[in-house]
Amino acid sequence: MTIKTLIRTIPHYPKPGIQFRDITTLLKDPIGFRMVIDAFAQHYANHNVDKIAGIEARGFIIGAALAYKLGVGFVPVRKSGKLPAETIGHDYALEYGADRVEIHTDAVAQGERVLLVDDLIATGGTAEATVALLQKLGADVLGCAFVINLPDLGGAQRLSDAGLVPFSLCEFEGD
Amino acid sequence: MTIKTLIRTIPHYPKPGIQFRDITTLLKDPIGFRMVIDAFAQHYANHNVDKIAGIEARGFIIGAALAYKLGVGFVPVRKSGKLPAETIGHDYALEYGADRVEIHTDAVAQGERVLLVDDLIATGGTAEATVALLQKLGADVLGCAFVINLPDLGGAQRLSDAGLVPFSLCEFEGD
Repeated sequence: MTIKTLIRTIPHYPKPGIQFRDITTLLKDPIGFRMVIDAFAQHYANHNVDKIAGIEARGFIIGAALAYKLGVGFVPVRKSGKLPAETIGHDYALEYGADRVEIHTDAVAQGERVLLVDDLIATGGTAEATVALLQKLGADVLGCAFVINLPDLGGAQRLSDAGLVPFSLCEFEGD
Repeated sequence: MTIKTLIRTIPHYPKPGIQFRDITTLLKDPIGFRMVIDAFAQHYANHNVDKIAGIEARGFIIGAALAYKLGVGFVPVRKSGKLPAETIGHDYALEYGADRVEIHTDAVAQGERVLLVDDLIATGGTAEATVALLQKLGADVLGCAFVINLPDLGGAQRLSDAGLVPFSLCEFEGD
């Protein structure tokens, strides 16, 4: 059993032509879920991670379990208007339209080594916007971890070119 | 240091008169976050938990870390239209208006012992709706775990009266 084989593909979701990679089948499997978190924990064991930032909503699931495993704090990165205290935000372009991520201004301290976590890297727009927020707060973003990389969409390459060190556990090509 | 002292109160959020209990200050603290997960893990150690169901979005953070700690699978309970495969849903009333929770039909198997996790229990409407979904799929809901209980809003009592065994780590009165 591999992590990749536990991920379900939903054809034509959320719109025609898109193959949606569904990790709920992986998460509900106790061995699969453990494999994911342990693989990340092993990879980042010597990276001196101070804190994990998880992107709403699936990044919360992976990021929080990994934060627990590594013994570090967890901070949520959310869509617009969801965080109750003082925030900073970053707008970014989507294929059609725009989106925005926000983080509490007290989420990370100057110089903290932060690992960004999400379930999937596609074009990398959300990850890049989140890194910009973390850096604005003075964080040292040590890397970006994803369960799935869709290499044809170029996001991992884009992060890599920007020196942001992406790491993923499996890839789906042809997306 | 206690769990309760790490929770921040935001006055008049999201509307005048509401004291919002913000757990982000607890989650970002490595010791606080670990205390929360370990307290739940200890409480449920002998309950033969098969799976954890976490309610979007803060329930994902607590539920996923606890699932990892207990060595069980995690299933997300989401707002309407967020899950990609076949779902069942349950509508429930809010103070003003209505809301809906959904779960994948293959999220839990007949007879599985499922623990429901969320950050906070107020009136209990979301928790009750989620329990209804889980029971419809044949799950044996063994309990409902919350970081925070707001006893004045009666949700924990309501769950208790329905035999749903609520458990929380701290309380805020006067809400």
